[in-house]
Amino acid sequence: MDRTDPEAAIAAAAKRCSNWGRWGADDVLGTLNFLDDTKRREGAALVRRGASFSLAQRFDADGPQKGWRRRTNPVHTMLDTGLDAERGTQGFPHGIGGADDVVFLPLQASTQWDGLGHIFDHGVAWNGRRAGDVVTSEGDRVTGIETASGRIAGRGVLLDAGRALGTDGELPDGFAITVAHLEETIAAQGETARVGRGDVLLVRTGRLARARREGWGDYAGGPAPGLSFTTAEWLHDTEIAAIATDTWGFEVRPNEFDDAFQPLHQVAIPHIGLYLGEMWDLDALAADCAADGRYEFWLTADPLPVTGAVGAPVAPIAVK
Amino acid sequence: MDRTDPEAAIAAAAKRCSNWGRWGADDVLGTLNFLDDTKRREGAALVRRGASFSLAQRFDADGPQKGWRRRTNPVHTMLDTGLDAERGTQGFPHGIGGADDVVFLPLQASTQWDGLGHIFDHGVAWNGRRAGDVVTSEGDRVTGIETASGRIAGRGVLLDAGRALGTDGELPDGFAITVAHLEETIAAQGETARVGRGDVLLVRTGRLARARREGWGDYAGGPAPGLSFTTAEWLHDTEIAAIATDTWGFEVRPNEFDDAFQPLHQVAIPHIGLYLGEMWDLDALAADCAADGRYEFWLTADPLPVTGAVGAPVAPIAVK
Amino acid sequence: MDRTDPEAAIAAAAKRCSNWGRWGADDVLGTLNFLDDTKRREGAALVRRGASFSLAQRFDADGPQKGWRRRTNPVHTMLDTGLDAERGTQGFPHGIGGADDVVFLPLQASTQWDGLGHIFDHGVAWNGRRAGDVVTSEGDRVTGIETASGRIAGRGVLLDAGRALGTDGELPDGFAITVAHLEETIAAQGETARVGRGDVLLVRTGRLARARREGWGDYAGGPAPGLSFTTAEWLHDTEIAAIATDTWGFEVRPNEFDDAFQPLHQVAIPHIGLYLGEMWDLDALAADCAADGRYEFWLTADPLPVTGAVGAPVAPIAVK
Amino acid sequence: MDRTDPEAAIAAAAKRCSNWGRWGADDVLGTLNFLDDTKRREGAALVRRGASFSLAQRFDADGPQKGWRRRTNPVHTMLDTGLDAERGTQGFPHGIGGADDVVFLPLQASTQWDGLGHIFDHGVAWNGRRAGDVVTSEGDRVTGIETASGRIAGRGVLLDAGRALGTDGELPDGFAITVAHLEETIAAQGETARVGRGDVLLVRTGRLARARREGWGDYAGGPAPGLSFTTAEWLHDTEIAAIATDTWGFEVRPNEFDDAFQPLHQVAIPHIGLYLGEMWDLDALAADCAADGRYEFWLTADPLPVTGAVGAPVAPIAVK
Repeated sequence: MDRTDPEAAIAAAAKRCSNWGRWGADDVLGTLNFLDDTKRREGAALVRRGASFSLAQRFDADGPQKGWRRRTNPVHTMLDTGLDAERGTQGFPHGIGGADDVVFLPLQASTQWDGLGHIFDHGVAWNGRRAGDVVTSEGDRVTGIETASGRIAGRGVLLDAGRALGTDGELPDGFAITVAHLEETIAAQGETARVGRGDVLLVRTGRLARARREGWGDYAGGPAPGLSFTTAEWLHDTEIAAIATDTWGFEVRPNEFDDAFQPLHQVAIPHIGLYLGEMWDLDALAADCAADGRYEFWLTADPLPVTGAVGAPVAPIAVK
Repeated sequence: MDRTDPEAAIAAAAKRCSNWGRWGADDVLGTLNFLDDTKRREGAALVRRGASFSLAQRFDADGPQKGWRRRTNPVHTMLDTGLDAERGTQGFPHGIGGADDVVFLPLQASTQWDGLGHIFDHGVAWNGRRAGDVVTSEGDRVTGIETASGRIAGRGVLLDAGRALGTDGELPDGFAITVAHLEETIAAQGETARVGRGDVLLVRTGRLARARREGWGDYAGGPAPGLSFTTAEWLHDTEIAAIATDTWGFEVRPNEFDDAFQPLHQVAIPHIGLYLGEMWDLDALAADCAADGRYEFWLTADPLPVTGAVGAPVAPIAVK
Repeated sequence: MDRTDPEAAIAAAAKRCSNWGRWGADDVLGTLNFLDDTKRREGAALVRRGASFSLAQRFDADGPQKGWRRRTNPVHTMLDTGLDAERGTQGFPHGIGGADDVVFLPLQASTQWDGLGHIFDHGVAWNGRRAGDVVTSEGDRVTGIETASGRIAGRGVLLDAGRALGTDGELPDGFAITVAHLEETIAAQGETARVGRGDVLLVRTGRLARARREGWGDYAGGPAPGLSFTTAEWLHDTEIAAIATDTWGFEVRPNEFDDAFQPLHQVAIPHIGLYLGEMWDLDALAADCAADGRYEFWLTADPLPVTGAVGAPVAPIAVK
Repeated sequence: MDRTDPEAAIAAAAKRCSNWGRWGADDVLGTLNFLDDTKRREGAALVRRGASFSLAQRFDADGPQKGWRRRTNPVHTMLDTGLDAERGTQGFPHGIGGADDVVFLPLQASTQWDGLGHIFDHGVAWNGRRAGDVVTSEGDRVTGIETASGRIAGRGVLLDAGRALGTDGELPDGFAITVAHLEETIAAQGETARVGRGDVLLVRTGRLARARREGWGDYAGGPAPGLSFTTAEWLHDTEIAAIATDTWGFEVRPNEFDDAFQPLHQVAIPHIGLYLGEMWDLDALAADCAADGRYEFWLTADPLPVTGAVGAPVAPIAVK
């Protein structure tokens, strides 16, 4: 990999990994097409104990955002409270009282899916469409996140790279997870960690565990372990349906080119058509997987279907 | 039922149905306690075909809200678009471009769960706590919706009252669904429709189908079919974990007392400790159930864990 | 005027009225350039009694917006209240308590200025700039409303067309106020109503008074009296600094062409460079002017300087 | 002053300075009652050159807020842009295009007035009302900021304490401006700096100039110069209508008691009934005053009339 020439590397990877046209000219789902009824049957069969795990962080003001590109943390305010109810000024009869609330929420403030309209390559979006024909000020009019509704339920598999490759379960910032690392992790975890067509792959780096221990710091946008740019082909060839990590940005940061910004996104979203999950909380699930040695599970992770959204919050549940 | 005395009726039902203390003085989950690992195993075993159904409406400006108690429809705006990316003014290197967005979202604007801090009875919240000790301007500090994270996955069962009791699959406004109606529906649907401990019960009235056909009109807050106040004991005694409908307000409207506002809420939430789902889209699932005669399925419906929220949007998925 | 050919009429008016280049290629103020220190001295000298009049509507949920282009009414929510303060749970020492609040505010929801980035003609903005070079998803990077800060203070003059030309002080919907009507109003009102270089002109139609009496109805976007398209030259030639009305959209609606949308805006903003005020509340001021026969006053109306905004709320005060 | 007993000091000052009942039991304006037509005539007569000065900071993401009590900086997003207009997808006829926008705005995020419902003393609000009877989740139902509309226009006077008492025009953090300091400043500035009944007093510390030079740092809530608690009587006895500073919190920080939070607020707002302005940008005006030796001017500073708000943004203009 030539650190000085991201343009050429991205172009080559994009060409090698392109899924444009694979599901027709009108496709809006990309690799979610791999997640079918068969896969959902396979996923459901993985439920043995019935133990469930939320993979969502809590959405509140105490989050990682620092205002980059106007992404604040969620601001939750009340329209009515228990104090109002006690005071009896709500205007309701027979003693009923209520509380109600509202949130101002940057859609990628916390645990989230990147939709297919989130990233473009030289002004071109998923499946070869012109970026400005897809996402205008009215939102993503073609591949809006709502088009994925009802689909993301199937077999999940966790690769706990933090535990397999790191120290005390955590990889250091700037650690680029390569294909060799992924394969080493799979080998260490055993048969239940195999990754294939239609799977939703979760990669844990331990970065969130560290943020929880040491404070957010530069969790949002700063240095982090993550997928190496060189995994693009593997991401394509495994035919996974989607991938999520416990980091802000999925790929390693600083990025592996001298002057770059999220080059793997630039291949993964517009060319592979891959849904990317970010800021997922994989720690409790990972502890359980380490304990019982089973790294596969039933996963449901439907995005909140905000019409035209290019990303959306999600409350994923894994069940083993 | 004395139509003129809701106070007495509510007090009697509250006393009869109270679950206060049932799970200890510190409980924050109410009937979600019924939804355990066993139930999740039972639910997962219901997946046969792998067919999945989103039960969420789309979240956008074209929703039912008309401003009641400052509930607007969601407002989705872009922070960056494909047009900006094409123009090349985003300041990113090597041709990457991005789109990003934000939403202003009343938490009960669309498909949602009412949390246990949503409704009070004479200034008292679930488990006997003082309303103002639970929900202040900082949100629900005790039973906030995030406390339910990772739990709502289990056996779902649909009672399609619209199909069983209505005309062309729809009940008229003001139709109060009684225990007899529920039992008639169960009988008509057969064995897969049995309702019991730990189930998440979905009751379809057809009201949303009508709104979809005729326009929102007074869908939010106006007349609607729904559960009769008299079902309170049945809701308690069946030991269901939660219940959701395709209407704005779960219970029949106009309410069954001369001067009343959501009296069944006043028993169900603070006394039974029951999670209520509203504005779920049950139509596609119902059509499938009618076709194959199976009314039970694997259901996951974790609320978006907005810290301290008294209600939250949800993107439920049913899998059969 | 050929009702069937708005394109030609707009093009002709634009050519006739263009101020492009008049204040240099870098100008961002348009006709606000006419409002200078001399004008401010003249304005201040009009204060005789010291009587002041707010020209702002109240900003709240009970406003005219109905969701057109995602413009909701303002949503005001509390971060802390007096109820919380009384409860003593705010965490402050020695008995101090506080209330605090937030608003979600479409910038053109109520009393407002249209900035120079609000309207384009065939993709071209004020002073001949390309629209997309001026207003991106980051806002108006050239003529943002904050560039007008500290300027809009000077001589205001009210033309009460409703009183001069209407019935009971109100013009009917669809009434196009022509130059003849403006001159008739000036003549009726007398010397203090003269209009000239650097003035901020307020035109009252009575439409808001009707909305106040009969309900908002279609105040936002529906039929209304307003300026005729044919006033474009007069607006240009009088060299006024800005103009405001008591209607949603400044110009008459329905517009005067068979198929049109706000054609006078299309000339006034990008070509004349004219600041347009909308939804101002002129009723109390107008009553006073009718009573004392003086239609000129000291006016301050600085927009809230939201950086990059293409329009902004304003709390104007007139003093006589 | 006993640093260890803020309760006693506050109680004593409150008793000494109380204006409760002074303008009747129904009063909602407090010291704004001092700002009358006579004062406005006096203010207008101060306009000599016609030079105008905006005293507002810009409202944008690059502000001082760091999330304290959920106060974010304003988030401005576009509903439509020039890029959309150029693309021609907005659905308008004859070449007209538009841009539109929205802001999420904590009302005390930037240049602002504290209304009379902002601060309470032991659960009691201005004029002796119970805090919870005044400000509920519906907002300030009694003294909402909209009640001040149309009033704040009159004589402004600047006391540039930074220049008179500081180094290079700036006071250091923690500098408590006492009555002696105010009088010293008045004496240094001369006759135009006299302060009396109905004036709007502006006190410049230089803190904002430093933030502008060095970055926001802890401008919001951190150490700052400001009014000493001991000025309470002077603020009361001068009968000023309102006061504003260039700091986040008007009074000196750290506060002058060992364990305290904004004790002067606790006297000034609920007991004196004094409107407090914060985060005003006084630098350009101060430079002009220093240059011409005139410290009085015409000031208009009407709050944005958000119904029920306990504070509000303002775009003040001074004219000399």
